[in-house]
Amino acid sequence: MTIKNAFYAQSGGVTAVINASAAGLLETARAHPDKIGNVYAGRNGIIGALTEDLIDTGSEPLEAIRALRHTPSGAFGSCRYKLKSLEDNRREYERLIKIFKAHNIGYFFYNGGGDSADTCLKVSQLADTLGYPIQAIHIPKTVDNDLPVTDCCPGFGSVAKYVAVSMLEASFDVASMAKTSTKVFILEVMGRHAGWIAAAGGLASSKDRHVPIIILFPEVTFDEEKFLAKTDRYVKEYGYCTVVVSEGVKGADGKFLSDQGLRDAFGHAQLGGVAPVIANMVRNGLGLKYHWGVSDYLQRAARHIASRTDVEQAYATGKAAVEYAIAGYNSVMPTIERISNSPYTWKIGMVELSKVANVEKMMPADFISEDGFGITDKCREYLSPLIEGEDYPPYKNGLPDYIRLKNTAVAKKLAEFKI
Amino acid sequence: MTIKNAFYAQSGGVTAVINASAAGLLETARAHPDKIGNVYAGRNGIIGALTEDLIDTGSEPLEAIRALRHTPSGAFGSCRYKLKSLEDNRREYERLIKIFKAHNIGYFFYNGGGDSADTCLKVSQLADTLGYPIQAIHIPKTVDNDLPVTDCCPGFGSVAKYVAVSMLEASFDVASMAKTSTKVFILEVMGRHAGWIAAAGGLASSKDRHVPIIILFPEVTFDEEKFLAKTDRYVKEYGYCTVVVSEGVKGADGKFLSDQGLRDAFGHAQLGGVAPVIANMVRNGLGLKYHWGVSDYLQRAARHIASRTDVEQAYATGKAAVEYAIAGYNSVMPTIERISNSPYTWKIGMVELSKVANVEKMMPADFISEDGFGITDKCREYLSPLIEGEDYPPYKNGLPDYIRLKNTAVAKKLAEFKI
Repeated sequence: MTIKNAFYAQSGGVTAVINASAAGLLETARAHPDKIGNVYAGRNGIIGALTEDLIDTGSEPLEAIRALRHTPSGAFGSCRYKLKSLEDNRREYERLIKIFKAHNIGYFFYNGGGDSADTCLKVSQLADTLGYPIQAIHIPKTVDNDLPVTDCCPGFGSVAKYVAVSMLEASFDVASMAKTSTKVFILEVMGRHAGWIAAAGGLASSKDRHVPIIILFPEVTFDEEKFLAKTDRYVKEYGYCTVVVSEGVKGADGKFLSDQGLRDAFGHAQLGGVAPVIANMVRNGLGLKYHWGVSDYLQRAARHIASRTDVEQAYATGKAAVEYAIAGYNSVMPTIERISNSPYTWKIGMVELSKVANVEKMMPADFISEDGFGITDKCREYLSPLIEGEDYPPYKNGLPDYIRLKNTAVAKKLAEFKI
Repeated sequence: MTIKNAFYAQSGGVTAVINASAAGLLETARAHPDKIGNVYAGRNGIIGALTEDLIDTGSEPLEAIRALRHTPSGAFGSCRYKLKSLEDNRREYERLIKIFKAHNIGYFFYNGGGDSADTCLKVSQLADTLGYPIQAIHIPKTVDNDLPVTDCCPGFGSVAKYVAVSMLEASFDVASMAKTSTKVFILEVMGRHAGWIAAAGGLASSKDRHVPIIILFPEVTFDEEKFLAKTDRYVKEYGYCTVVVSEGVKGADGKFLSDQGLRDAFGHAQLGGVAPVIANMVRNGLGLKYHWGVSDYLQRAARHIASRTDVEQAYATGKAAVEYAIAGYNSVMPTIERISNSPYTWKIGMVELSKVANVEKMMPADFISEDGFGITDKCREYLSPLIEGEDYPPYKNGLPDYIRLKNTAVAKKLAEFKI
């Protein structure tokens, strides 16, 4: 039996630790040259496979591969591109098989979220549907933490830590200024469908260090009156309060709060986030001085404040993917199984991809406090371990020494393909 | 001679390291009980002096004082309150003297920026103007880096590091997504008058790791056409680009770009930052996908990524303030003097307050590149050492273990005073 090569691609929005999964995968593959040949990475994700734009990871020195563990973003490029069903786009699947054949690829590793799990599932069925033998393994990645079965998703813990630390620091700041200046600070965070990331902001407050934090979840219909009443109460009691608002918060009309149809002085449509909308309400409704921030990409790229737990889990899932492939598995995804909360212990498990694809895990209702503005103890127990531990990157001249790979292209063997 | 007590207050916007100055000052004062009695801190800055709301720092355990070194924000509260001239507000100065007398205060330590230096100067003249003997020492603090004489200002180095790290991480993120998604990321940072903070974003690009970064300085009149041309060129060459924009950027009409007179669908005035304004131009002018963020307080509160250089300088200026007081100085400010660039070495100097008050240090013109969108090598040489080194706070349960002092009030001795 000839040794098969592997294909690896990063998919969807990148994170602080998706490259740690790549490191786990590539290091483990290199440790088994008798089982897996070279690993070809798709340049810009699955698009790289379709266009035969493959990266020769074998030409990178081991130390560069190791440095991926501490480098955020997608080292090989990612993309937002979902393969349609075999019926709707047989052409693309046939192209994939041509690429796999041409480069002797027998393993397909796909590192992404829910949509990617679906694509990976379809590839895993190519033996049945189009007769090409391939083992497809999905590696979980999403800051949205919405994949089912797995206890959490690599990428989420580090965003959670960034948001919790930021809310803590901003709260300390506002507390010291509130006497004569800003009384309310609002931070907008990601999470269009689920409030996992906003919930993490609640960790900045704890029993031994209470901070007046209001959380605005996408799961809770926004009620301006209730929100202003709570803000007013906090400011009267503590002198200040801080608000973490999910970008996906909607009003009673079902529309995103951020979608205010803003116009400039000339009547031209303008962009806006949800944070300034909330700030406006605080100004108009309570007359309080406010400040607001929008974390945007900073929150998911912040490898400098990554959760060690998250980094370790990201690496472990990448490693497990290779081990599962070597053990002969197809159409599975490594999962993170929580063993205990205190001390937090976990292990790597496995789930069939068919149970993951197209299933979204929402925040349990009992994670949100009764008034809709906070997290419950149950939520806290779930979240806290995920931000545990620090894992600082090395620094050079005051900045993190993130690696840029050479990303050498593999020679093309096929004709061009238009996507 | 009886031993005199000291008064200490934090003034203006807080920073990641103003408490490190407090630690340097309080630890040093405690080491000289034969020279300085208790140190009373003003609750919420100078307002605490006027209202006799004094904090007994002597009742804090030494370990709590030491923990200030790694805690951002103003531990005693700060305020934005500028004393008028003696002619315009003799009442407040007479009140200060009453407070000083009642609590046997002979040293006045004021920790702030330009306005505070002016207040401190006025207090230092009380012996001459109102016959009360006091030694007033100013401790520099401002993220704006605009105090004269001193090579840099404690507080700035850490903001600079935060902005440089954030721009590096965001640039890595966008680079991996640009093939099918976001091509331009815009980060809004502080700096209404001077572009020091925006300039620091340029450090994310270096000779051995070029990143296509555009800097929008408040010193350079914004030219939309030139900006879009540069963005277009970068995106064509690199596939993406990132923009760091100072909140103080103005157009040819002299108005802040952020002041767009935004209205919601009902015609109500809305808030906006400058980042979404720039994003709008990128969308309308180039049709490129964008993302934008606003750091706001996060940048100046981010003790988790503070510059070690900055922390050491903040501590050293607090320490020097006490040493100068003990040596009999009045009306001075410790400065940071740069000895060499490479390796970076520095020492503490001293300047008369009269040379600091009401003087603003702007960015030198030769720190901005010819096209107005970048920093020169000279600027880089100046900035780089200021972000050197890391100084991580201790962590507990995944979050920085920042200290909250007891802030016990000193018993009042005088009648109430309305400010």
